[in-house]
Amino acid sequence: MKKITILLFATILTSSVFSQFRGHFSVPNLNGFITLKADFHMHTVFSDGTVWPTVRVDEAYREGLDIIAITDHIEEGFHIRRRHVSGTRNSAYEIARAHAGNRGIIVVSGGEISRGMPPGHFNAIFLTDAEALNKANYTDAMRAAKEQGAFIFWCHPGWDAQQPDVTRWFNEHTQLLEQGLIHGIEVSNGELPESYSPEGHGWCLEKNLTFIGTSDAHGPLHFEKGERRTMTLVFAREATVESIREAVFAGRTAIYDRGRIIGKEKYLKELFENALDFDIRRSDNSVTISIKNNSDLPFQLRKTDNDPRMVYFRYLTIDPQSKASFTVRFREGTPTGNVNFIVENFLVGPNEGMKYTIKL
Amino acid sequence: MKKITILLFATILTSSVFSQFRGHFSVPNLNGFITLKADFHMHTVFSDGTVWPTVRVDEAYREGLDIIAITDHIEEGFHIRRRHVSGTRNSAYEIARAHAGNRGIIVVSGGEISRGMPPGHFNAIFLTDAEALNKANYTDAMRAAKEQGAFIFWCHPGWDAQQPDVTRWFNEHTQLLEQGLIHGIEVSNGELPESYSPEGHGWCLEKNLTFIGTSDAHGPLHFEKGERRTMTLVFAREATVESIREAVFAGRTAIYDRGRIIGKEKYLKELFENALDFDIRRSDNSVTISIKNNSDLPFQLRKTDNDPRMVYFRYLTIDPQSKASFTVRFREGTPTGNVNFIVENFLVGPNEGMKYTIKL
Amino acid sequence: MKKITILLFATILTSSVFSQFRGHFSVPNLNGFITLKADFHMHTVFSDGTVWPTVRVDEAYREGLDIIAITDHIEEGFHIRRRHVSGTRNSAYEIARAHAGNRGIIVVSGGEISRGMPPGHFNAIFLTDAEALNKANYTDAMRAAKEQGAFIFWCHPGWDAQQPDVTRWFNEHTQLLEQGLIHGIEVSNGELPESYSPEGHGWCLEKNLTFIGTSDAHGPLHFEKGERRTMTLVFAREATVESIREAVFAGRTAIYDRGRIIGKEKYLKELFENALDFDIRRSDNSVTISIKNNSDLPFQLRKTDNDPRMVYFRYLTIDPQSKASFTVRFREGTPTGNVNFIVENFLVGPNEGMKYTIKL
Amino acid sequence: MKKITILLFATILTSSVFSQFRGHFSVPNLNGFITLKADFHMHTVFSDGTVWPTVRVDEAYREGLDIIAITDHIEEGFHIRRRHVSGTRNSAYEIARAHAGNRGIIVVSGGEISRGMPPGHFNAIFLTDAEALNKANYTDAMRAAKEQGAFIFWCHPGWDAQQPDVTRWFNEHTQLLEQGLIHGIEVSNGELPESYSPEGHGWCLEKNLTFIGTSDAHGPLHFEKGERRTMTLVFAREATVESIREAVFAGRTAIYDRGRIIGKEKYLKELFENALDFDIRRSDNSVTISIKNNSDLPFQLRKTDNDPRMVYFRYLTIDPQSKASFTVRFREGTPTGNVNFIVENFLVGPNEGMKYTIKL
Repeated sequence: MKKITILLFATILTSSVFSQFRGHFSVPNLNGFITLKADFHMHTVFSDGTVWPTVRVDEAYREGLDIIAITDHIEEGFHIRRRHVSGTRNSAYEIARAHAGNRGIIVVSGGEISRGMPPGHFNAIFLTDAEALNKANYTDAMRAAKEQGAFIFWCHPGWDAQQPDVTRWFNEHTQLLEQGLIHGIEVSNGELPESYSPEGHGWCLEKNLTFIGTSDAHGPLHFEKGERRTMTLVFAREATVESIREAVFAGRTAIYDRGRIIGKEKYLKELFENALDFDIRRSDNSVTISIKNNSDLPFQLRKTDNDPRMVYFRYLTIDPQSKASFTVRFREGTPTGNVNFIVENFLVGPNEGMKYTIKL
Repeated sequence: MKKITILLFATILTSSVFSQFRGHFSVPNLNGFITLKADFHMHTVFSDGTVWPTVRVDEAYREGLDIIAITDHIEEGFHIRRRHVSGTRNSAYEIARAHAGNRGIIVVSGGEISRGMPPGHFNAIFLTDAEALNKANYTDAMRAAKEQGAFIFWCHPGWDAQQPDVTRWFNEHTQLLEQGLIHGIEVSNGELPESYSPEGHGWCLEKNLTFIGTSDAHGPLHFEKGERRTMTLVFAREATVESIREAVFAGRTAIYDRGRIIGKEKYLKELFENALDFDIRRSDNSVTISIKNNSDLPFQLRKTDNDPRMVYFRYLTIDPQSKASFTVRFREGTPTGNVNFIVENFLVGPNEGMKYTIKL
Repeated sequence: MKKITILLFATILTSSVFSQFRGHFSVPNLNGFITLKADFHMHTVFSDGTVWPTVRVDEAYREGLDIIAITDHIEEGFHIRRRHVSGTRNSAYEIARAHAGNRGIIVVSGGEISRGMPPGHFNAIFLTDAEALNKANYTDAMRAAKEQGAFIFWCHPGWDAQQPDVTRWFNEHTQLLEQGLIHGIEVSNGELPESYSPEGHGWCLEKNLTFIGTSDAHGPLHFEKGERRTMTLVFAREATVESIREAVFAGRTAIYDRGRIIGKEKYLKELFENALDFDIRRSDNSVTISIKNNSDLPFQLRKTDNDPRMVYFRYLTIDPQSKASFTVRFREGTPTGNVNFIVENFLVGPNEGMKYTIKL
Repeated sequence: MKKITILLFATILTSSVFSQFRGHFSVPNLNGFITLKADFHMHTVFSDGTVWPTVRVDEAYREGLDIIAITDHIEEGFHIRRRHVSGTRNSAYEIARAHAGNRGIIVVSGGEISRGMPPGHFNAIFLTDAEALNKANYTDAMRAAKEQGAFIFWCHPGWDAQQPDVTRWFNEHTQLLEQGLIHGIEVSNGELPESYSPEGHGWCLEKNLTFIGTSDAHGPLHFEKGERRTMTLVFAREATVESIREAVFAGRTAIYDRGRIIGKEKYLKELFENALDFDIRRSDNSVTISIKNNSDLPFQLRKTDNDPRMVYFRYLTIDPQSKASFTVRFREGTPTGNVNFIVENFLVGPNEGMKYTIKL
């Protein structure tokens, strides 16, 4: 009798899991690449998180993500539930992957190599065996990851618990970089009060590293309407593990972080242009520009460096999935010239918005 | 100088109007007809409402509606702003239609003939001149509407201010019906505490009248996530005024009212079947049925009249845009039989859910 | 170095836990008793839940609860994480209680004795050692609980996985009742699609058992604005474990379940009267009654059995923390009489609203 | 018969108005003054707004405001509904005040003197007759307001439609100031994409003018959970018109604007200290500081200028109605020193957060 009860119970649980909404987050594709939504940093009860690994899959399903990496801390010191929770460093990944089944969420294996500063914490993802990363020496741990073909990124470089006053790049980081053990930087970390690290942004550009944004979730995630976790946008050839791996090694990513898009100018410009349709109508002394935003991204424009004979907005916000329009009036002469502005929430350098010009 | 300022101001207002989200409400089409979302009852400052007519267009845009009718009360007694607000009985419609422009919202003209009970209030829509409805005698007013080809429906038959104890059909209603002056009944009215009228439902079926659901909005509308106004679903050949008019006269409608779908069984059955994909997998002693809901409608199922040898859910909720699954276990014999249930939020009779059977 | 890092991390975690809002749910006290908000049924990774026990405390803090019981299943069959999660049947409670500290949430120990039907599942709360409940025979398990002074209630009597067609009271339940092993019934269970059991309601009244409502949470809980978990309102002398225990044994409870209040008429009537202030003003032919709702409870009134000479509302909704008013008009004679109505969301019998009269 | 119907209808409308929630926005009082929530800038259909004046009262009620001013534009050019809406420049105020009745919302009369730049738009509030402000010359209009004892403030000084490139102070403003015709500046205007004007902030400090923040609402207002309109916090002796008038002339105000508090340091410091309770506990090498936020204001702290021997947070967010804690670790020596930080969302100068020190 008991056995039947348990089987029934399992049926109910499964159905409740599936009865959650599959969320959507509409971000334009790039020319030649599809845009996938990824979160490569999150924890479970297998280190210092508070949820079972299946919860991470349910959250990703609800928020419209395509790929997640479970990255519990490798080191014993972070296994704070070890009095009650046991398993290998692959267990959380295995549980989450089994739960994902064919629900359209790719789960990859990861681990966080978590040391004092320097060098701080590093996530290795696309692992085949996280146990091999359990080494006394952090360079050994990262080498073990590299041997598995892992992608390695420096986590939360500006975390104040490790960098109490300024965010520094240490000699240790230079050494790791020279050994090919750093491929990216977590420029945005959703668990920190100030998620964005301008220093991390500068280093990504300067050293040609991949931009990574993550939730670093420890507890259950829930977002109010219009809000989303910090994540990485991956510009991949197709929605497969291998294609995503190729994209992050090639640096084809950007970050979504609390309404901001952060990354290299060439990708952000393509996102901007593929998200918006422009319709330009001219009259005698003015030009009216109507904009249709087909994406779930917001755009915050601020005028800059403009020709003083042209009068137009100082600030213009284009909300997700909406339309906006503005008129350029010409104080004198022919209605031609450059509409210059900065897209303030598209960061192409440390705290620096993306410049853009519409030529009339 | 002042003139320039005003022009600028107008530009800004226009842009803020367009910067609102276009909402979506995904309801399946029927076989051969598209499903349009309509609200045929709402007020403005031109009678006893509190908003300018443009607000009604903005709300419809934000909520994903396809068509609205402005239906201010015809009678002087309801023109409670007349000390300050003047115009013809067509003014509100004209202002709203001009504001709608090419934003994808059809605006039609209407008017509410508002008398004590009997016969109560009646909305006439698809008018060409609402002024012509200003008659001392209500039958004359409705005849004037009919001459314009209007569709006429009895509003909130169960409104307690007019039917304090029970909801009655009066001799006056029979007379109007016999003269072809009643084409539909507002079975659901979103302004009432209990929006749904089971008596109205019964009369629609019994007298072959069209099911109408409306907001009857007087103040500004706003809905929390997942909530929507009460509205009419119109099954039309195309999204034109003429096609919608043809559909409501033909009775091809249903009502969306606070998560319930209300109307004739044949349309509700098609909505149910077009919204859901079923996947049936058999094993030795059980059958597992997976359901994918591709719509924004919820479905609340309750088992009924079942073969005692088959064990399955007592209640099953399928949320909007989600998946659900359940297993039918067979206590003995071959795994075939009927899965009988009622879709409790699909009302095909007064307070009566729609019966449905999946044959295994 | 590593040690310091870990210490720092713990500091951050603690602060993030405390930075959640303490929620409020304002329910009136009864005459002589304070009203405490309790949830006596919830799971963690220590049986078939998906969260660490600390999450249950954080949720209760955020939702304004006063007391929770952790009630993981006693039986091995439900320890579905046992490959990775170990501990005694007291571990989840110990972890949650330590986390609660002095945050104003009382945590008590519990366990769910989970068998096929009959007799189904039973929660025992206020345990001193949950391990003692691990017996082959369910009566032995419940006797062990009773020896610890536990309060025992039958969980989800109408759960369709156990009662597929109708909700039955079995001989086994009569036997348990006669042995003093059932003190209450979980009339409302928030995990079920239809949370409320009218049969359970009837049995509570008939057999003088305590009304219990619970979340039965397995996954993380989150509620939209205005929504709350299903819970038990306990009318206690003070906010102590002993006082709460006394109250539930004395049957001084009611249930909050999705906007409904469920329980014995005498408590519901006091809640109604203590939540609302009435102001009655008379004129010649009418009386106007203004109502101020000082609570977070809603009230849904429907007129019934009225004197035909008195005209007033058919439905009246009084929202939480708001005011409402209505006018009674007298068709003839002196303005005196009874305003009769049913409070439809205050259930004093199976699916039966509470009758109330205001004498004018 | 018609008459009765209309009376009934009015009853229903009144009751629906009262059934809205009275909102709360908990901001601490100052020493000797109570903090009132005010919005001194909003429009209706009587100029270029889209709502009837009663809507403004309902919104204020729902959002917990204490006082509003209806400030429709004085000039004909902004009376864009004049084809249909007529009345004096006092009509909107009179309608709103009658609707407010004794609901706890003070309504005062106002008008917006709306000219091209220079000098731009100016609101005059606490008027006795707004008609008197209808003058060809703006100085005459402001003098007429002054004769009525009005408080006059410059609206949206940085509105890009009037100041397309930079926000300038013109000679005309100097002249008005010298004549005593400017008493305050609308440093924050909720209708603009970038609500806050740092230039306006600087001028308030430099010229000793009163800080004003407003919604400048034209359409219906609605806010998601946790969001609020831009408003003025008035530190008054009591909740009367005369006391509020005295406070704004005395400059005892601050601004609430999208989570920021903006104003003079002395008031912001008192708000900070009255909102937060600090509990300081010392151990050998560290001090732990627990903070309880008893207000609905958020606080965003960033460390600055710190003693390098003291290690603590770089960023700390204290959410409304919540607790936070942090630990200061001492690298060497005795655990004493200054915890220096900036409250980034408390602006005491143009884009400049408030410095604060906790001495240990």
